[in-house]
Amino acid sequence: MIHHDSIVALATPSGAGAIAIIRISGEEAITIGNTVFQSIKGKDLTQQKSHTLHLGHIVDGNKTLDQVLISIFKGPNSYTGENTIEISCHGSTYIQQQIIQLLLRKGCRMANPGEFTLRSFLNGKMDLSQAEAIADLISSDNEASHQIAMQQMRGGFSNEIAKLREELLNFASLIELELDFAEEDVEFADRTQFWELLNRIEFVLKRLIDSFAVGNVIKNGIPVAIVGEPNVGKSTLLNALLNEERAIVSHIAGTTRDTIEDELVIGGISFRFIDTAGIRETKDLVESIGIQKTFEKIEQAQVVLYLFESLKFKVQSSEYIIEIEKIKNQFPLKPLVVVINKIDLLTTNEIVTIRQQLETLNIKLETISAKNNLGVDELKNQLLSFVNTGALRNNETIVTNTRHYDSLLKALDEIQKVKFGLETNLSSDLIALDIREALYQFGLITGQVSNDELLGNIFANFCIGK
Amino acid sequence: MIHHDSIVALATPSGAGAIAIIRISGEEAITIGNTVFQSIKGKDLTQQKSHTLHLGHIVDGNKTLDQVLISIFKGPNSYTGENTIEISCHGSTYIQQQIIQLLLRKGCRMANPGEFTLRSFLNGKMDLSQAEAIADLISSDNEASHQIAMQQMRGGFSNEIAKLREELLNFASLIELELDFAEEDVEFADRTQFWELLNRIEFVLKRLIDSFAVGNVIKNGIPVAIVGEPNVGKSTLLNALLNEERAIVSHIAGTTRDTIEDELVIGGISFRFIDTAGIRETKDLVESIGIQKTFEKIEQAQVVLYLFESLKFKVQSSEYIIEIEKIKNQFPLKPLVVVINKIDLLTTNEIVTIRQQLETLNIKLETISAKNNLGVDELKNQLLSFVNTGALRNNETIVTNTRHYDSLLKALDEIQKVKFGLETNLSSDLIALDIREALYQFGLITGQVSNDELLGNIFANFCIGK
Repeated sequence: MIHHDSIVALATPSGAGAIAIIRISGEEAITIGNTVFQSIKGKDLTQQKSHTLHLGHIVDGNKTLDQVLISIFKGPNSYTGENTIEISCHGSTYIQQQIIQLLLRKGCRMANPGEFTLRSFLNGKMDLSQAEAIADLISSDNEASHQIAMQQMRGGFSNEIAKLREELLNFASLIELELDFAEEDVEFADRTQFWELLNRIEFVLKRLIDSFAVGNVIKNGIPVAIVGEPNVGKSTLLNALLNEERAIVSHIAGTTRDTIEDELVIGGISFRFIDTAGIRETKDLVESIGIQKTFEKIEQAQVVLYLFESLKFKVQSSEYIIEIEKIKNQFPLKPLVVVINKIDLLTTNEIVTIRQQLETLNIKLETISAKNNLGVDELKNQLLSFVNTGALRNNETIVTNTRHYDSLLKALDEIQKVKFGLETNLSSDLIALDIREALYQFGLITGQVSNDELLGNIFANFCIGK
Repeated sequence: MIHHDSIVALATPSGAGAIAIIRISGEEAITIGNTVFQSIKGKDLTQQKSHTLHLGHIVDGNKTLDQVLISIFKGPNSYTGENTIEISCHGSTYIQQQIIQLLLRKGCRMANPGEFTLRSFLNGKMDLSQAEAIADLISSDNEASHQIAMQQMRGGFSNEIAKLREELLNFASLIELELDFAEEDVEFADRTQFWELLNRIEFVLKRLIDSFAVGNVIKNGIPVAIVGEPNVGKSTLLNALLNEERAIVSHIAGTTRDTIEDELVIGGISFRFIDTAGIRETKDLVESIGIQKTFEKIEQAQVVLYLFESLKFKVQSSEYIIEIEKIKNQFPLKPLVVVINKIDLLTTNEIVTIRQQLETLNIKLETISAKNNLGVDELKNQLLSFVNTGALRNNETIVTNTRHYDSLLKALDEIQKVKFGLETNLSSDLIALDIREALYQFGLITGQVSNDELLGNIFANFCIGK
């Protein structure tokens, strides 16, 4: 499908920089570009080859707006599959606006968010899951999410789904053929092979569905609650984690006014540290409002770090251990790590005693000296060990997209219905219906099946200019 | 001068957008790019023609960082005059960082601010005033400053200076020739023609120097003080000015805590409105702290708007007129416009009376109804009339750069010394010295004369990546 209208948008971030890129796509993109461009060498843009660059000026009547470089891409050899030009202009907001306004007057219209990528999909340059990967790629801020998005963009996920779909389609057509010969009671589809295929599909679907937990965590970061008394050294701990890794730290306003989140990338995985500032300000440990708030934060987290100062812990250890137990009892399945800072102030014997106490409770202990940079690596490894990075390392497909996850769940459900149908000797026409539904769900993922509403939802989340 | 080290920088604004551009310049730019690029079609970048675009992946060992487009520019046909590549990658900050870090490992170094343009200058692609115009162009946020920067970038200013310099150089060499034949008392340089040239140069220099006042105002905006009692409708006035023009409004923190500046573009010229909030809160009009603050703001402004509400003005007109006179007496040369809002509440006769009163004081009156959008255009025209846009309209060269202004002043001084020398029959060798000094000042503007410190100062103000 070639679009007859030409769309224009700023493709680089807004604001002033050295240069900015304005992108036009559509049948008339090059022709429109040519009407506002005066080449230094007197070239006619419409006569130039694809994938070439041309220096000149953007002119509005007899007013020169800027000196620019224009890149020409002729459809189908462009991102959108249509004729495309990119204008590389000076990065002033004023110039960007002037050029875009001029192009609008010359017959372009402003692109909607994601419309360049939508056209790329509609023109068959990529499937839907690849298009979605591009949005993920642009917003990726750590190695793991970047790697998953790259893999998906390059078709890893689509290929896996497409292969299963094709095999299933084969059997579906055989089974539907049986329907045509219903009176003759023949079986074109080998039931043993079919059963094997269904098991294989079930296995892959389950793996993909399981990967979503990891994928989701990687995409959004792993929430880690830091529990501890005020001034126990939460920021010292974060800084210690930061010092070695060249990590990204940001401050995100939390959901409640007294929560601040710090994001930290460790080993390519984002961790979101949820501060539980303000807790434990009353004397009574367990019954206080403080502990109630702590429980709320822990509820949101996937990992809990309980931070203590060594000397205080030594003095009040029995009291503290009771509190640790309460948390463990409340959240028996949530990984809990006790972290004791200023460990250099304790003797080896004292540390061994604490470790033994915690071991009997089946609770992990990490001892650190943030000041002397001791034990920090061990703590990082401990945190990473909670993430199932096996799939990442093995370059397996990981699902990060809720839409894909939903379709996979539905497809699995249908596959299991088909299996049940075969076991209970259900009639072929009913089995065929379930197979069709599974195929439909696969098609939704790659976009072989799509509708305007679905596309609208997906591309509305893109940035403008992509 | 070809630089052997290759510099790299992000050329687009930082932050996430659809795409980002990373630029490399230097002898090895294409070779280095080739080591991290895997073309989709298996191309070798070093074998490609200049001004071509190539699709492929940036790879770090066996890890793929991104799918990118690479533009190739071979020196001297590039911005810097050196081999240059531009990598158009996906706009995630993570990807940008990863690619730049990879290039640093492959032998590039981070570019200093303005270093690409510095190289362009050093490689003779542009003169110094053109290079400076590029920084102005990027920061231009209105039509007038954009137009001046474009004209300067395209060599308008340099050409004017270069022509004068060449003519002066001609005479200088003739006069220096006379020195070689000093005993024979010959005159190679025609004194009448020389006198004529000096007058011409003096005339041009004076015009350029005069243009600086306009240029400076256009570059930095024209400060307008809005005087008036609290709640008299300053923001209503600004909004009325805004409503028609699609203008840029920003809030700039002022120099004092009680000053807010609004910037507004009217007819392509920036006006900075200085609010005098908080004045006139005491009863006594003239002696209060309020009027003292008002005077301070007026001191900073080039135009004063004194804003009144129609009904209040009618009631207290004699009192107000006294106050207007005080300001007029204090600042006799500063344009003062009395603006009366809600003019629809007065009768025509009442307006005529006020107008007559002000006319006798030689003070301009603008009557508006912000609500009904009456008189707003007239007020805008009044504001614009205070700006000498004649030079702009006539496409004359306008000086906006303090450095150029200084050199022009010094050159004028030297030219006047030469004239004085001729009048007083000063010996040729002394005249030659003054001519050399004038030539030196011309050379400083275009960069024919330069030194590291000067260049350092100029390019340090550039953004990185340009």
